[in-house]
Amino acid sequence: MSSQHVQRMSRLMAKTLREDPADAETLSHRLLVRAGYVRRSSAGVWTWLPLGKKVLDNVSRIVREEMDAIGAQEVLLPALLPKEPYEVSGRWSEYGDLLFRLKDRKGADYLLGPTHEEIFTLVVKDQCTSYKDLPVMLYQIQTKYRDEARPRSGVLRGREFQMKDSYSFDVSDEGLAESYALHRAAYQRIFERLGLDHRIVSAVSGAMGGSASEEFLAPAAAGEDTFVDCPSCDYAANTEAVTFALVPVEAEHPAIEEVDTPDTPTIETLAAHLGVPASATLKNLLVKVDGEITAVGVPGDREVDLGKLGEHLAPAVVELVTAEDFADRPDLVRGYVGPQGLGKVRYLADPRVAPGTSWVTGANKADTHARNVVCGRDFEVDRYLDVVVVEPGDPCPRCGAGLRLDRAIEIGHIFQLGRKYADAFGLDVLGREGKPVRVTMGSYGIGVSRAVAALAEQSADEKGLAWPAAVAPADVHVVAAGKAVQLALAERAAETLAGSGLRVLLDDRAGLSPGVKLTDAELIGVPWILVAGRRSADEVVELQHRATGTREELPLAEALARLTA
Amino acid sequence: MSSQHVQRMSRLMAKTLREDPADAETLSHRLLVRAGYVRRSSAGVWTWLPLGKKVLDNVSRIVREEMDAIGAQEVLLPALLPKEPYEVSGRWSEYGDLLFRLKDRKGADYLLGPTHEEIFTLVVKDQCTSYKDLPVMLYQIQTKYRDEARPRSGVLRGREFQMKDSYSFDVSDEGLAESYALHRAAYQRIFERLGLDHRIVSAVSGAMGGSASEEFLAPAAAGEDTFVDCPSCDYAANTEAVTFALVPVEAEHPAIEEVDTPDTPTIETLAAHLGVPASATLKNLLVKVDGEITAVGVPGDREVDLGKLGEHLAPAVVELVTAEDFADRPDLVRGYVGPQGLGKVRYLADPRVAPGTSWVTGANKADTHARNVVCGRDFEVDRYLDVVVVEPGDPCPRCGAGLRLDRAIEIGHIFQLGRKYADAFGLDVLGREGKPVRVTMGSYGIGVSRAVAALAEQSADEKGLAWPAAVAPADVHVVAAGKAVQLALAERAAETLAGSGLRVLLDDRAGLSPGVKLTDAELIGVPWILVAGRRSADEVVELQHRATGTREELPLAEALARLTA
Repeated sequence: MSSQHVQRMSRLMAKTLREDPADAETLSHRLLVRAGYVRRSSAGVWTWLPLGKKVLDNVSRIVREEMDAIGAQEVLLPALLPKEPYEVSGRWSEYGDLLFRLKDRKGADYLLGPTHEEIFTLVVKDQCTSYKDLPVMLYQIQTKYRDEARPRSGVLRGREFQMKDSYSFDVSDEGLAESYALHRAAYQRIFERLGLDHRIVSAVSGAMGGSASEEFLAPAAAGEDTFVDCPSCDYAANTEAVTFALVPVEAEHPAIEEVDTPDTPTIETLAAHLGVPASATLKNLLVKVDGEITAVGVPGDREVDLGKLGEHLAPAVVELVTAEDFADRPDLVRGYVGPQGLGKVRYLADPRVAPGTSWVTGANKADTHARNVVCGRDFEVDRYLDVVVVEPGDPCPRCGAGLRLDRAIEIGHIFQLGRKYADAFGLDVLGREGKPVRVTMGSYGIGVSRAVAALAEQSADEKGLAWPAAVAPADVHVVAAGKAVQLALAERAAETLAGSGLRVLLDDRAGLSPGVKLTDAELIGVPWILVAGRRSADEVVELQHRATGTREELPLAEALARLTA
Repeated sequence: MSSQHVQRMSRLMAKTLREDPADAETLSHRLLVRAGYVRRSSAGVWTWLPLGKKVLDNVSRIVREEMDAIGAQEVLLPALLPKEPYEVSGRWSEYGDLLFRLKDRKGADYLLGPTHEEIFTLVVKDQCTSYKDLPVMLYQIQTKYRDEARPRSGVLRGREFQMKDSYSFDVSDEGLAESYALHRAAYQRIFERLGLDHRIVSAVSGAMGGSASEEFLAPAAAGEDTFVDCPSCDYAANTEAVTFALVPVEAEHPAIEEVDTPDTPTIETLAAHLGVPASATLKNLLVKVDGEITAVGVPGDREVDLGKLGEHLAPAVVELVTAEDFADRPDLVRGYVGPQGLGKVRYLADPRVAPGTSWVTGANKADTHARNVVCGRDFEVDRYLDVVVVEPGDPCPRCGAGLRLDRAIEIGHIFQLGRKYADAFGLDVLGREGKPVRVTMGSYGIGVSRAVAALAEQSADEKGLAWPAAVAPADVHVVAAGKAVQLALAERAAETLAGSGLRVLLDDRAGLSPGVKLTDAELIGVPWILVAGRRSADEVVELQHRATGTREELPLAEALARLTA
């Protein structure tokens, strides 16, 4: 290891703050600002001060090494991109307000790249002509731009941020699956090396194959994503990707029976009135799918996730029905709809509404419900969809145990894109048989600046940051108390450690009490803190391990030997 | 040295081209595109392909090491910047069309940073409160944006480009001079290590102190800057900064004599008519300075540089006089103005119009000139200014030898800014005496992507690029001819070299002749080319040094020993 400079706190641009910034909601936001790692420039746009830049560089280096190791080639594309390719792909308009758009002096339209599928497709179209040129994987670590409606949580969700994006290009589906597997394994190694606790979850429903898209999530209270995981098997998924089994029931049920149910405007009042649990009732939500009235049936105790419904039915447009729609359809009795009487209305349902299950539901007349309405006997489901909001305790689709819901930060996403962009830009190469072959593509991202926030979230405690060694801005933080003998010992310790190749932060600031310096050291979160304090004259120092809080007094020579071991 | 990967040409995204790109004017532009280092994304905006990214990284690494060595701290500021600080400094409007401006979703104004003095001033204002916190030097290597009217010459003058910008903050002028000297020395080491032939030139006139601003120029035919240098002493300067000595003449001159000079509309016809050299005539250019008519006298054989004149007189506005101005002033006879009769017109002159010199000039009446018009006897100069266009052979201001004019690429600029931005943003720290002290600032830039172009310009030959070792994308380019024995030998050589820590490019492409591969290797310009050719069976290879063109056949073992030595 080469000799390193000692970074002196007396000159370091890392002013610590005692107070939390007013707008900071999350732990990482508060601590990264207070410990002098970042400063806000404008909403969602951040300056990385020296300590922050070091952590960012450490993350980038690990990402780069693992991308190189799978044979991906590093390039650097512009952030300032012309409109045309994004018009071809449709994303110039699809992105809406999320895109930063601008004009140059000649009035030509540009955007600041939020992600680069279009441009990489064009690069490969320029560079590759034959199947012999593929497979190829390209990546960059680059500044990205997204005009978030509500930038928040510091560098966790910024409008300008650092991202590693990579793209694979293959001639076959098998090739794409291999490139995807290489990325998946590289991402596992990256997050392992970074020291990030993470889960890999399906990002799309099992119906689409399951492996076509996965997210890497770092569990953290500040996370904006919710995911489910199973305490008894290794199942984990984005809540949007959870699927529930359809389990038909074999049972004899009494015949349908209508009951008067006045003054039961809600599921709760209905269930109380009839003395049944809400889960025994069937709620029928009416929506319009591309203008066609459609009913969606779910148990009365569950909520429909309209976002999921929209995704299942895309590109069809889903809207809620209005009072006018009811006026046009006197057969639909608002508040008393039941599937058993809906001749011409398409009926979608949650898998819990399985064949053979019996329900209390609307009788399609005012103030009246029906009991013993049996799926398959009294009504048919046109299509089963997973559209209910997942709740803790829902059965694991793999083993049936009760699922947990946790919050997490999305730190990576891998995605088998397929031929969408190759189709848009006509990306073909000459195949083995001499005919053009359309290229298939994968897209893979890691939020590099976001990973810094995730690391801060996962490792911090009430005293401050506590970085894993691989990403810490220094290896040892040497704290000198104020007397000459203490400062001299600290200087000697720092020089020796730096001479051994360790990265050393030396608190040589004058006029501060040892207590203030130690508080700052705990806030800054370097893995080891070495204090030259009251026993300095005897060459005895205190060595503190930041993450565990263990501290011990020992001779300087022994401390140095231990740190440089 | 750690073991490196062998980069195989069969997979490398570096398609070489036989033809020059249509729009390429300069050597570096043509070769960087043809050799597969860069590709144009839009006007003045470039994609760095893998080989180009490696050269860019090598340049960045050397810049970073030398900035770290002088104690500068690396940070990363945003490129997306709010309007307000640039309004405070006045540059929001001063930059004119050069600035990329945009609005976010809420309609707030932003710009893409062309340089960051404003934001660094704000960072230091946030971080530093006492003289004890200074001096401090901060730097970043970052993407910059300038909407050039005519982006050209490839990555030499782009609209999105990589730059190292640093800023020093001191409490005293002496401190600033020290920070400046540290940067100056670091820049010399950087360009030395990069292998860039360079000159340091004064960027401002001697009148302002000379050392307040210097440019680092890389002589190159493609350069957009012209500079003078002296073949006999070490004087060098931006042409705009050249000063000429004022040398009064002691001599007796005959009295003024008027001569009829019909049909002499130009200096040439006048000189021919009178039988004197053009340099003996005095040309008087009339301009308006903030609306006031002013004459500028220069020898008849010299041109006035209106840009220089404007800079000397700034912030006054300089305009040329119009026909209306002459109509208002019948005492000014167009084409026949002479300083001897200009009672109320301010007279500026080139130092060559020294006291005691005698001239042929206008007689202030139509078709008439005057001879023997002597400076100091017949007219007075109100102010001497260096405003003539410098020409080869002009005397060196230091030693008097004839100056040379050369073209160069500006690769660095160091500048003692002083208190301009500290004044604008009220950047004070508490001084030693307990009173606020205004901070003084330096600004220092290196064009990182431009340095790649400058390196290409200086080192390339008619066969292609020829990188200095420190920045080359690889150390050795191993070329395998087509037979199995040749390919096997090349593979073995590549693995051995990589195992010794060398960066190896292996041309393993199938179906290409050795000639084509060698032509590509010469185009790509890695320092050493090792060819496994016709004597491969005997384990004899050819080793070629790209820059000098020397080639020699020798046993593989010897070649490897020499390369890894």
